[in-house]
Amino acid sequence: MPETPILDSLTNPESIRDLTASQVKALADEVRSETIDVVSKIGGHLGSSLGVVELTVALHHVFETPRDILIWDVGHQCYPHKILTGRRDRIRTLRQAGGLSGFTKRSESVYDPFGAAHAATSISAALGFCAARDQKGEDNNVIAVIGDGSMSAGMAYEAMNNAAETTRHLTVILNDNDMSIAPPVGGMSAYLANLVSGGAYQSLRRWGKSVAERLPRPLFEMVRKSEEFSRTWFTGGTFFEELGFYYVGPIDGHDMENLLAVLKRVKEIKDRPVLVHVVTQKGKGYEPAETSPDKYHGVAKFDVITGEQSKPKANAPSYTDVFASELIKQARDDDRIVAITAAMPSGTGLDRFAEVFPARTYDVGIAEQHAVTFAAGLAADGMKPFCTIYSTFLQRGYDQVAHDVSLQNLPVRFALDRAGLVGADGATHAGSFDIGYLGALPNMMIMAAADEAELAAMIATAAAYDDGPSAFRYPRGEATGIAIPERAAPLAIGKGRILREGSKVAILSLGTRLGDALKAADMLAARGLSTTVADARFAKPIDKDLVRQLAKHHECLITVEEGAVGGFGAFVLHYLAGEGALDAGLKIRTLTLPDTYQDQASQAQQYAEAGLDAAGITLTALQALGLDDAALARAINR
Amino acid sequence: MPETPILDSLTNPESIRDLTASQVKALADEVRSETIDVVSKIGGHLGSSLGVVELTVALHHVFETPRDILIWDVGHQCYPHKILTGRRDRIRTLRQAGGLSGFTKRSESVYDPFGAAHAATSISAALGFCAARDQKGEDNNVIAVIGDGSMSAGMAYEAMNNAAETTRHLTVILNDNDMSIAPPVGGMSAYLANLVSGGAYQSLRRWGKSVAERLPRPLFEMVRKSEEFSRTWFTGGTFFEELGFYYVGPIDGHDMENLLAVLKRVKEIKDRPVLVHVVTQKGKGYEPAETSPDKYHGVAKFDVITGEQSKPKANAPSYTDVFASELIKQARDDDRIVAITAAMPSGTGLDRFAEVFPARTYDVGIAEQHAVTFAAGLAADGMKPFCTIYSTFLQRGYDQVAHDVSLQNLPVRFALDRAGLVGADGATHAGSFDIGYLGALPNMMIMAAADEAELAAMIATAAAYDDGPSAFRYPRGEATGIAIPERAAPLAIGKGRILREGSKVAILSLGTRLGDALKAADMLAARGLSTTVADARFAKPIDKDLVRQLAKHHECLITVEEGAVGGFGAFVLHYLAGEGALDAGLKIRTLTLPDTYQDQASQAQQYAEAGLDAAGITLTALQALGLDDAALARAINR
Repeated sequence: MPETPILDSLTNPESIRDLTASQVKALADEVRSETIDVVSKIGGHLGSSLGVVELTVALHHVFETPRDILIWDVGHQCYPHKILTGRRDRIRTLRQAGGLSGFTKRSESVYDPFGAAHAATSISAALGFCAARDQKGEDNNVIAVIGDGSMSAGMAYEAMNNAAETTRHLTVILNDNDMSIAPPVGGMSAYLANLVSGGAYQSLRRWGKSVAERLPRPLFEMVRKSEEFSRTWFTGGTFFEELGFYYVGPIDGHDMENLLAVLKRVKEIKDRPVLVHVVTQKGKGYEPAETSPDKYHGVAKFDVITGEQSKPKANAPSYTDVFASELIKQARDDDRIVAITAAMPSGTGLDRFAEVFPARTYDVGIAEQHAVTFAAGLAADGMKPFCTIYSTFLQRGYDQVAHDVSLQNLPVRFALDRAGLVGADGATHAGSFDIGYLGALPNMMIMAAADEAELAAMIATAAAYDDGPSAFRYPRGEATGIAIPERAAPLAIGKGRILREGSKVAILSLGTRLGDALKAADMLAARGLSTTVADARFAKPIDKDLVRQLAKHHECLITVEEGAVGGFGAFVLHYLAGEGALDAGLKIRTLTLPDTYQDQASQAQQYAEAGLDAAGITLTALQALGLDDAALARAINR
Repeated sequence: MPETPILDSLTNPESIRDLTASQVKALADEVRSETIDVVSKIGGHLGSSLGVVELTVALHHVFETPRDILIWDVGHQCYPHKILTGRRDRIRTLRQAGGLSGFTKRSESVYDPFGAAHAATSISAALGFCAARDQKGEDNNVIAVIGDGSMSAGMAYEAMNNAAETTRHLTVILNDNDMSIAPPVGGMSAYLANLVSGGAYQSLRRWGKSVAERLPRPLFEMVRKSEEFSRTWFTGGTFFEELGFYYVGPIDGHDMENLLAVLKRVKEIKDRPVLVHVVTQKGKGYEPAETSPDKYHGVAKFDVITGEQSKPKANAPSYTDVFASELIKQARDDDRIVAITAAMPSGTGLDRFAEVFPARTYDVGIAEQHAVTFAAGLAADGMKPFCTIYSTFLQRGYDQVAHDVSLQNLPVRFALDRAGLVGADGATHAGSFDIGYLGALPNMMIMAAADEAELAAMIATAAAYDDGPSAFRYPRGEATGIAIPERAAPLAIGKGRILREGSKVAILSLGTRLGDALKAADMLAARGLSTTVADARFAKPIDKDLVRQLAKHHECLITVEEGAVGGFGAFVLHYLAGEGALDAGLKIRTLTLPDTYQDQASQAQQYAEAGLDAAGITLTALQALGLDDAALARAINR
């Protein structure tokens, strides 16, 4: 454990404000050591946290948190913040079941006034706090800290565009490390780079002089017209000034002295929103993370000396890997295939696709709305776009999927990674809703892979299917380890498959819960209950013949899906009801994710909690048949 | 009918390209007269169409549509475009059942390469066409025409930010009329106004000189550094230049000569995306529309001489009016209530709220993502935000509802106007999906008003309910005419009501289909079938007691909702299945909107088509009971 005397001596977060400047600087060093030590032992988001160590300490020193509202965008850079705000004793429980969230979270601390995880929400939320404060006639500060990567998101622009009209008193800190998870893209990114390289960082003296003169207003107007000010104006931050902000910077986010001085001055500005452009380095202070910021964005446990991560040996490729390999295969045969990612090339596996087909890969930045309609335009002109977005992030493009893709029946292919429960990232990243929100849309075809061979077949199916939009979902993590055919054949649209034939109970599984459905069938068979297991493959269109046959020939039908209510089970029930297939009675149960947000834990723990593991499926079938098993129910807390 | 000799003489759209400059100018005048005549007789979007008459004619004259791809943002300004592209003979069927859509639509014409209706999709779609063209090695032009109002949308920024990285060959025409439906808001709007007022429009000569010199590139670089160019650079369009565009303008969009000359030059620019800033006047050439652009945005039939609109006399206030009145009442009693609109103050009735509470009304522009998270910030700091967004547009903010509101359980109130089928605006504006996409989210409370008294009660309920997020939906159009209590009392959360007690059939209605449910009960009673009618009031939480009782005591249960599959009926089925209430059989049918997009027609026609009118509900009940009525089925095409 590193030595952390100042950190140890802090009795509460407020006491950071009583430290001297040199103590503040030393505290930052301690917090950095502590962060490296913590993440080396439990894994997590390292680079982004190391980049904001000085900024975090400086903010808590200068501002009166929690009365002053401090909102971290995304929130994965919050480990130093958590260490400093009463959560140091639990910091080694980060991202684990029952432990601290890997992001900011309102229910965890009053120092987290607004939770985060998805990008670019902070300025909108901050403006909400500003408006509330202004309505109540209070005068606390509100600070949003947002990364340069998030500035590619339309949401950040919408908020910036509304800032000056909403309030005169807001601080936005642009934490510019020239990275999101991947290198940033787009005109804004180039513009920021230009600002940073366009001249040395402004010295505090020069900046201080001009800002001091800006206030009060009449003086400011005079200075504004002066030659010197004009130069500042045109060399720095016009873009932001045009949206109604004071622009301050760029300043070095690791120079504590400068940082404190600037923040103290900024704290006094209450007549117009301020944007402070702070330049930081992702991974700062830990050499391996400085040199490979993408590799050290999210890490496993690692050896602090060597930087070597101890990733558990994989037994099978990840679903993401399988997706990338199969899409590359398909693209070799069909030059109409192109791929789109919204700032997640490595997360989605499209970094591998881009190595083979650089000109057929589009990274549009954190811009899901644009990604979807861009794909729609490509499809309208005859291309075959694979729009590759995590299930949870496609929520950002829902209107575009509805209005631009499904309504026009354009053959965009949606590859939905991280569908279902995601483990350590918790509720904010779970892909819980896509079956329902996509399935409600006319024209959509939706598949869910039960294993990696099915995933390969679904990619082939999507590539071949040109009649309208399609989507295929697959979970986070390792696949099952089964063989994938060298050439996957397309599936028959809307047709499921029966894996095991029985007579009493039917389990109709959609997606990777199939393994647990088969185990449940074993458990039921052991109790003398002959059980059919089917893989639906398609959430839409559902396999009507299969559903009807299962309903007709079994006493009990259980549907299983890794998604919220209103999805696959709902489509099955709606169909069976409409057919009159429930008129004479059917012990039907539709297992879905629970109607609550599930906190971080291992995926296995989350499945069990959701009742979607073998035991949960088994118990549901038993209970439906009036054969309650008290011991089993107790074992799984039901 | 106006005299239109040149328009009459056009044998096909391509022949516009053969006209002389003076003929083109005369053609524009004729198209304007025709547009005014058409809209005066059938109603529709007038002001936006009149503003782009010259631009439309000029674009078809200069560019080789449909080979050159022309994409209109929103598409409500497309009447001149439709008149010129083979649809003049059907132009008087606009917005009517079986007629032309009021927006651009791919299935209607090859001159509509990408349909529209929701704002700010055009640049993304255009970039998709550019990327497809570049992949195929073709060289057609791609033009997006986008209004200044749409520039407040994050989606437009996302696309602009990606333009230069995606292609070197794109034309964006910024149609700046200083209006969307309402006056525009935000920093970008102020910036554009500044550009326009900042100097006279650049003369063609001056602009032509500098652009000519820009090409080829080495020359351009020289000129770029010159004093003259610097002036252009800094006085015009820095914002867009910084995102990687050539900025051209501002130019007068009604000066045909200038317009043609500029477009001809722009057509040759293929080395960097171009943004042409065209200043137009909404309603141009028709004096009443020029002076009251908001009043003449969408109009009823009107007298061309007087400008007087012949709106049919209303028998009841609109639901929108009721919402505004009731929210004002609530806000008088509770100063924590604030209201948010995304650029639709008049459409949502918040213009009336703003008259009474200007400082408690926030118009954030076409920025639904920001609107939702801004509301979340307000709620997090103790305010009671009513986030008032049409059902179809809330799709833009879905991730924010999930991630920022529902996950944090913040008491934002969503007022969902235009829920369900909307008549003449057609499929793009239908609010079909909200029950499902909101109902899937934990913590959400969702109500649907059956009539205006219920709506008033639901507003009171939402105002009082502070335990988490809530939503209430209500349709477009006139309310029923019943009395509204002076002080509406909050409802019991999750409790429905029984309006009529029967014994054989139960109809459980959510929302304004209640009137037809009661009529269906009459039709069933006339056939000797005793029918219960209940108003669910809540889509979430559902009234479990009521649902269970209805299921237990009736042979047949029909749920009715104006929404897609996966909503209220799905929640009822999921619950009943889980309770074992279907085990012994129940003739349950869940009526929803069909799994297709319904084109424009009257709302009554659309309800009938969806099977959600009295006849449709009746027939469903009869068929469920095995009492088919062939005559009734024939009468309603089932």
